[in-house]
Amino acid sequence: MDIKEIKKNAKERMKEFCILCPECNGRWCAGKVPGMGGASSGGSFQRSFEKLKEIKIAMRTLHKVSDPKLSCNIFGVDLSFPALVAPITGTKFNMGGYVSDEEYSNDVVLGSIEAGTIAMIGDTGDPNCFQFGINAIKKANGKGIAIIKPRENSEIIKRIKIAEEAGAIAVGVDVDGAGLVTMKLFNQPVGPKSLDDLKEIISSTKLPFIVKGILTVDEAKLCVEAGASAIVVSNHGGRCLNETFAPAEVLKDIAQAVGNDIIILADGAVREGVDILKYLALGANAVLIGRPIIWGSIGGRQEGVKITLDTFKAQLYQSMILSGADDVENFKNLSCILYTKKV
Amino acid sequence: MDIKEIKKNAKERMKEFCILCPECNGRWCAGKVPGMGGASSGGSFQRSFEKLKEIKIAMRTLHKVSDPKLSCNIFGVDLSFPALVAPITGTKFNMGGYVSDEEYSNDVVLGSIEAGTIAMIGDTGDPNCFQFGINAIKKANGKGIAIIKPRENSEIIKRIKIAEEAGAIAVGVDVDGAGLVTMKLFNQPVGPKSLDDLKEIISSTKLPFIVKGILTVDEAKLCVEAGASAIVVSNHGGRCLNETFAPAEVLKDIAQAVGNDIIILADGAVREGVDILKYLALGANAVLIGRPIIWGSIGGRQEGVKITLDTFKAQLYQSMILSGADDVENFKNLSCILYTKKV
Amino acid sequence: MDIKEIKKNAKERMKEFCILCPECNGRWCAGKVPGMGGASSGGSFQRSFEKLKEIKIAMRTLHKVSDPKLSCNIFGVDLSFPALVAPITGTKFNMGGYVSDEEYSNDVVLGSIEAGTIAMIGDTGDPNCFQFGINAIKKANGKGIAIIKPRENSEIIKRIKIAEEAGAIAVGVDVDGAGLVTMKLFNQPVGPKSLDDLKEIISSTKLPFIVKGILTVDEAKLCVEAGASAIVVSNHGGRCLNETFAPAEVLKDIAQAVGNDIIILADGAVREGVDILKYLALGANAVLIGRPIIWGSIGGRQEGVKITLDTFKAQLYQSMILSGADDVENFKNLSCILYTKKV
Amino acid sequence: MDIKEIKKNAKERMKEFCILCPECNGRWCAGKVPGMGGASSGGSFQRSFEKLKEIKIAMRTLHKVSDPKLSCNIFGVDLSFPALVAPITGTKFNMGGYVSDEEYSNDVVLGSIEAGTIAMIGDTGDPNCFQFGINAIKKANGKGIAIIKPRENSEIIKRIKIAEEAGAIAVGVDVDGAGLVTMKLFNQPVGPKSLDDLKEIISSTKLPFIVKGILTVDEAKLCVEAGASAIVVSNHGGRCLNETFAPAEVLKDIAQAVGNDIIILADGAVREGVDILKYLALGANAVLIGRPIIWGSIGGRQEGVKITLDTFKAQLYQSMILSGADDVENFKNLSCILYTKKV
Repeated sequence: MDIKEIKKNAKERMKEFCILCPECNGRWCAGKVPGMGGASSGGSFQRSFEKLKEIKIAMRTLHKVSDPKLSCNIFGVDLSFPALVAPITGTKFNMGGYVSDEEYSNDVVLGSIEAGTIAMIGDTGDPNCFQFGINAIKKANGKGIAIIKPRENSEIIKRIKIAEEAGAIAVGVDVDGAGLVTMKLFNQPVGPKSLDDLKEIISSTKLPFIVKGILTVDEAKLCVEAGASAIVVSNHGGRCLNETFAPAEVLKDIAQAVGNDIIILADGAVREGVDILKYLALGANAVLIGRPIIWGSIGGRQEGVKITLDTFKAQLYQSMILSGADDVENFKNLSCILYTKKV
Repeated sequence: MDIKEIKKNAKERMKEFCILCPECNGRWCAGKVPGMGGASSGGSFQRSFEKLKEIKIAMRTLHKVSDPKLSCNIFGVDLSFPALVAPITGTKFNMGGYVSDEEYSNDVVLGSIEAGTIAMIGDTGDPNCFQFGINAIKKANGKGIAIIKPRENSEIIKRIKIAEEAGAIAVGVDVDGAGLVTMKLFNQPVGPKSLDDLKEIISSTKLPFIVKGILTVDEAKLCVEAGASAIVVSNHGGRCLNETFAPAEVLKDIAQAVGNDIIILADGAVREGVDILKYLALGANAVLIGRPIIWGSIGGRQEGVKITLDTFKAQLYQSMILSGADDVENFKNLSCILYTKKV
Repeated sequence: MDIKEIKKNAKERMKEFCILCPECNGRWCAGKVPGMGGASSGGSFQRSFEKLKEIKIAMRTLHKVSDPKLSCNIFGVDLSFPALVAPITGTKFNMGGYVSDEEYSNDVVLGSIEAGTIAMIGDTGDPNCFQFGINAIKKANGKGIAIIKPRENSEIIKRIKIAEEAGAIAVGVDVDGAGLVTMKLFNQPVGPKSLDDLKEIISSTKLPFIVKGILTVDEAKLCVEAGASAIVVSNHGGRCLNETFAPAEVLKDIAQAVGNDIIILADGAVREGVDILKYLALGANAVLIGRPIIWGSIGGRQEGVKITLDTFKAQLYQSMILSGADDVENFKNLSCILYTKKV
Repeated sequence: MDIKEIKKNAKERMKEFCILCPECNGRWCAGKVPGMGGASSGGSFQRSFEKLKEIKIAMRTLHKVSDPKLSCNIFGVDLSFPALVAPITGTKFNMGGYVSDEEYSNDVVLGSIEAGTIAMIGDTGDPNCFQFGINAIKKANGKGIAIIKPRENSEIIKRIKIAEEAGAIAVGVDVDGAGLVTMKLFNQPVGPKSLDDLKEIISSTKLPFIVKGILTVDEAKLCVEAGASAIVVSNHGGRCLNETFAPAEVLKDIAQAVGNDIIILADGAVREGVDILKYLALGANAVLIGRPIIWGSIGGRQEGVKITLDTFKAQLYQSMILSGADDVENFKNLSCILYTKKV
């Protein structure tokens, strides 16, 4: 099985849910929520793609970087390369149902470990989903991260305890889920979190805590103040609020403001290895990969996830050689690949 | 009935007049005047859409805004959310005739009230149209606004009196109708208005007076000088003059110049709730909704108008939670959602 | 006959030569030279269209301009509006041959006069073409302008004499024809003109002399120095050299540099009345209309040319009312329609 | 045979490998590596095309340049115009196999000489390819340049000796091949080169040495320091690393930094004569032509290559007349064709 076969399979199995466009840019699937698309006109999804595309990198080959270092350590865990799997649920409504949520959770958690990295598992209106993710993390002896919806604090803390018992590496809340309509349908209120809310949640656990869904410097600073270990600069794949900024256009400012104080993960439109390099050069410590992992699971199950991640890793490796970036943790060397000059 | 069904119905019933494109951007219908399009090459319509699309907003979820205030008061009337229905006539020539002008007037005036807001009714070469609108306002016990074409002053004042007798909330003139060819066909001259013209008209009534069709700071100031209560920043849906600026690109300057002196309504390319938020953040007090209301009336009649407005309201509500905007009348809090940063 | 019918006829009669695209932007016909397109990839034609499209105008209706003045005087001739017909030849190779060059010359020269303006006639490798144009000018008692290819000076001067005898209003050379391959095929050398060349040509006649094909300030100044009466800012419809600037992007600078010293005509992508207004606002005294006139002749012959011009005139009239431009010769009032503001 | 027939033939013979799009912009063939496309999403190929397209030139025809000088001397060789043929291999995998690598090498080396210029021959995992190129150079009595992949220094030097023995004009390394996957498949390691590596290679030969694949000022300076005779500003046709800068957007800075110290060749998206002129105006001494030469060989073999080059030469000649550029070696006069002005 290779990445071509995985994509071919996924295309056949996802049918009208996703057609694996040559360029996965959010145009075909605009408005398909539930489904694979961005909310409303798909503007946020498309922006994420376009703004990352606008960033170009300087090829350099006159140097000594013939074997760049891709490994890094995040939350005390050694990763083979700086990419984690994004938390995703709802395989039936969003992906067409070829895999169940239980199968998907296992695929991503175990497939990620095979590729030397870790997956995040998600939370949704259906309580089984979160449990499937927790079960997968248990199977993996805790090698996974649990991301919880912005429910009432007590409900979040309850789930953090469940994640702790499963031995999870870290926990978090995707605060941009604050407006999710699907949660309301299940009568499980979600909403924004105040600084005090956040402090209460974070102080309830000794696990590293991640705030997912940050797009501004001021909220990034609030996360530092609240004691979070990491933020995910993300617009939730464009699926919560239409017409937001793109992660790629705000990341640099956020990294300059809080890069020394907190781990920064970037999420949005990562489609190949060079996209990881771009986000690192803008200041991220690592990225999340979303839609391509769905293709991996549906197109090749656990092995498909592993192969997809291995492909990204190989592409990142090649792009670091071709840009002279020696180490994913050496930001100074990374940032100079964004050297820009216009006529 | 829901918004999906309304749009499906409208699509079937409008046929070659409007195909409800996935993105209502003025391309398919370019030049369809009469019809649903923009004048000539559709440049003004398209510009309105594109410039509003270029404005992106900052998602924020670390705050206490879990139940933002959407209600506001305009012309002494409490509205459930800051959106009014734009004045539109000519259901046969422009929309294909599934509803008559009389039916349309009733749909929008009464449907708006059901949704907690108010509609504007329009004027055109066929004198019956204005009368249908006035009749609808009467049925609604005056809850409606009459917008009159820029006819000779005496003709305008005559119609203002008719609107007053109907108990209308406010009256106005869409001055950008000054070049309308269709009016000439009916031998009813229209034209530009001098400051003195405007003063004469405004002094003829005690009702709040609205000047619709302003695109420059200098003309916005003239409206203040003439004693108008409100302006509508608008290029008439791109249907009068091709190749104009877009409301979204001039609104901020206009709001800075006259925002303290006059009510500012923004009109153009409002297609979902987040578009309202954008215009508010740029300085508008409220927006007008046009084409989607046509779909509402044709696709679901009075109930369709109500459901369309309710959908916009729910989307606005969600987008305010997700951007931390607490109150549609709190401009300071609104404007910061346009925080922009580029790589 | 109206403009719609003319276009419909033209579309049927030009077949694979021109399909009258909804937007005549040089994409479909890219590379069709001979034919209706721009040279090579069509980049110059497309640029002319796009740069003119980027210019947007401020709608204004609070003023007293209810009957703007469109008439003007150029080369001592009163024109009903500031637009002339561009010199075009080669009806067979370029347009498909529905009209002959002789018929076309008559259509444009006489149709223009009916519309209150004048046409330029052109020159090409086939000597009959120029003669057809001259004959048409004679029929019109001299009401026409002869534009000659940049042949050897003696050959140009010979043709100037012919034009003088025909009573032409003015003569000129389209210097951007200096690289025309088609001329070589007919063994009639063309080439660039030095300042001395130009002076010699201009001093040979008492008629106003036009240099057509200027795109830079420095060459505009050379024209003033050589004693020319007018320049045409033009890239020859994109048909000579690919990848040039557009007239719309250089016109303002040229007008600022030489606007007081020479008549400036603008040529390129004029497709409706508002395009004339844009060029006037940038500093042109009048414009040339090209491709739409071809449609006029082929779609409705002499009457088609007249109706096409009348349509442009009516559109210009309306756009002046809607922008408050009172007089095509009042540049101060015109330039302020380009007031631009961005968010 | 003319250029039209050559392209028609090539289109038929390349089938799914290349469809000779009206605009060869890297969109249709995105990701086709092997094949004719750019790597991954084709971003680097597309960028090369788009950034060159953004550069527009000033048409000028009031001057004395009626017979511009196209000839130049590079590496001591007189060229009829400043364009060389880019090194390309892999006719089967990349082009569909209508010509063999041996045939292609002969076509380009001998066809170039017929057109008064010279070709570069390439290197790849299959050792026969390089030998075919060397053989062709021998047939041409040394009139050709050998470009070697960035293998281990000893392997490069071995091939330089082979080229010397064949009497090659110059040799070089395409350092951007450092990440080529295809080379690994053949178990022939490639990689980046340090300054010391480069010095060792260059000091091994008395032939002029070319470093191909430079995109930054800093690496251009390293080439000067290492003693190279020339650099090729290139992103390898977008085939090595996705998402790089385009040659056209970095060339000017590179030329300003090292233009007096080293020969600069520009490579990327040259599709017609005016593209050569653009690169010269940005500071290149000459350009490389790639994909159009493939069409030439496949569509018309050796004669096709000659005719393709002759066509570019004729187009360049015409574009120099129309821009007043008198001499391809007169940079001062060339650079002023990029005079830019925006509204």
